[in-house]
Amino acid sequence: MTENEIKEIVKKTLASFKFDKSEMTLALAEKICEAVIGYARKAGVNAVVCVSDSAGNPRLVKSMDDAYIASYDVAVNKAFTVVALKMSTSDLKPLAQPGKELYGIQFTNGGRIVIFGGGEPLKVDGKVIGGLGVSGGSEAQDTLLAKQGKEFFDSLK
Amino acid sequence: MTENEIKEIVKKTLASFKFDKSEMTLALAEKICEAVIGYARKAGVNAVVCVSDSAGNPRLVKSMDDAYIASYDVAVNKAFTVVALKMSTSDLKPLAQPGKELYGIQFTNGGRIVIFGGGEPLKVDGKVIGGLGVSGGSEAQDTLLAKQGKEFFDSLK
Amino acid sequence: MTENEIKEIVKKTLASFKFDKSEMTLALAEKICEAVIGYARKAGVNAVVCVSDSAGNPRLVKSMDDAYIASYDVAVNKAFTVVALKMSTSDLKPLAQPGKELYGIQFTNGGRIVIFGGGEPLKVDGKVIGGLGVSGGSEAQDTLLAKQGKEFFDSLK
Amino acid sequence: MTENEIKEIVKKTLASFKFDKSEMTLALAEKICEAVIGYARKAGVNAVVCVSDSAGNPRLVKSMDDAYIASYDVAVNKAFTVVALKMSTSDLKPLAQPGKELYGIQFTNGGRIVIFGGGEPLKVDGKVIGGLGVSGGSEAQDTLLAKQGKEFFDSLK
Repeated sequence: MTENEIKEIVKKTLASFKFDKSEMTLALAEKICEAVIGYARKAGVNAVVCVSDSAGNPRLVKSMDDAYIASYDVAVNKAFTVVALKMSTSDLKPLAQPGKELYGIQFTNGGRIVIFGGGEPLKVDGKVIGGLGVSGGSEAQDTLLAKQGKEFFDSLK
Repeated sequence: MTENEIKEIVKKTLASFKFDKSEMTLALAEKICEAVIGYARKAGVNAVVCVSDSAGNPRLVKSMDDAYIASYDVAVNKAFTVVALKMSTSDLKPLAQPGKELYGIQFTNGGRIVIFGGGEPLKVDGKVIGGLGVSGGSEAQDTLLAKQGKEFFDSLK
Repeated sequence: MTENEIKEIVKKTLASFKFDKSEMTLALAEKICEAVIGYARKAGVNAVVCVSDSAGNPRLVKSMDDAYIASYDVAVNKAFTVVALKMSTSDLKPLAQPGKELYGIQFTNGGRIVIFGGGEPLKVDGKVIGGLGVSGGSEAQDTLLAKQGKEFFDSLK
Repeated sequence: MTENEIKEIVKKTLASFKFDKSEMTLALAEKICEAVIGYARKAGVNAVVCVSDSAGNPRLVKSMDDAYIASYDVAVNKAFTVVALKMSTSDLKPLAQPGKELYGIQFTNGGRIVIFGGGEPLKVDGKVIGGLGVSGGSEAQDTLLAKQGKEFFDSLK
């Protein structure tokens, strides 16, 4: 049996696990985080990735080697924001600008509301069961990585 | 080839990796965290486990299913405390009691200093390269889990 | 031997010290701080100068006579910001304006991110080994002083 | 002229400076800090030393190589405490224990009041002109270093 054949078996075995998506388990968070870190590696981004539960509390936070120190708070807060407001941080962004509908929310929630891209709520049948926060690249990169992570989550069965 | 044989091969392959212990990489943090979660499962504890770097910043935080919400902050702060003071939180505990040498330090460092067991500094050749914080069980359980995690780290080559 | 000759000898002796730039020692921080305070004196600015290590923690903070009370926090936070985000605070400034990429980051990291000029990361071979934060003059003055300090650091051998 | 002769001249020249002790200048803070770091070196302690002004604001903070991360906040807060309460932190200690006169002050001032030894007010003619905070060794060591620093200050003319 070759190494590749073994790898294939392991891969299939892992893929055969079914993920309970009714709530954010650590196993589910691991799966999402692993995918996002894979996307980040491809994009050349050293990211901090956080997956939170339906209360916005972190279930899993990983800081890739050489990530920004500042990215930890940002990733954790993005994963909170998207659950707390049930929208992505990129959707929140325009609403929180001076003169706009939610301007000021960045000051009123203990500094935990992030108003730039990189956070996505994770929904099952329209219900938010968790949040994903990514920080480490440009806003465009973080936004893309979070969207890719969300799509990966949606594709899980 | 049986499933068990495959598992054995995978296990040996993983064991053959050498971990660079000169600094706290994500790979090293994963290894430590995985071990501690294994110990926690055996002990029947739903723990939050945090591994920090040499500055006390979290590299990896995992919250096991059904862990206390409060355990997140406690685990992260334990992993900070042991780096910030270069001692385990169980060694700090007696020093921080009323009337003792460091009573009050729990209030003066932004509330980040934890003064009960469950945190261990991770040292290589006497130098602190990171910290381990465990929270979720009784103090005795957290203390034991952190010590087991430290021993596991010390045994890594 | 005249006073000037003695001064010259002392000066040369000091200049002959080699500074280990692999990490931010107190001796290195002193050297940088001394240079920046010299520049500030020439510019007529009463500054607070902070040099932080690779984790953004202050190694040395000096408040010149008659500096603003507020400048202490600003200088310390600038020296943190440049390490935490690996960029100067003047480069961060445009990114943190309303509608821009990082607008809001000034609120989400415990209020420690400064978004106006006067902070410079200190790099050796592309790696951030510390940060410099200057506060006390106009933004233009602080920005210039921090840049001069960075250039001084780069010129050290 | 030998090196020792030059050192002697420089030493005498420095000693001939008169320090204005009517307020805490940076030059005065440097002098005190330098003395305390000298004492700490002799005692084998890697300390953070802070000298504050008559408002308790830091004028100078130095972190010796390999000092505890936690010592920064402790030293700065000790230098604040002794000015804010016009007494040493070792005198404050018994008053702040459970059941005693000032129990609770460690919670009511934003976590800035340190209630263990290592802080000394610096007085001229009975008036507090600044504070000294030392952190890095055992409480006994920090207490001694701060007292030595205070004595050095008192001996300055």
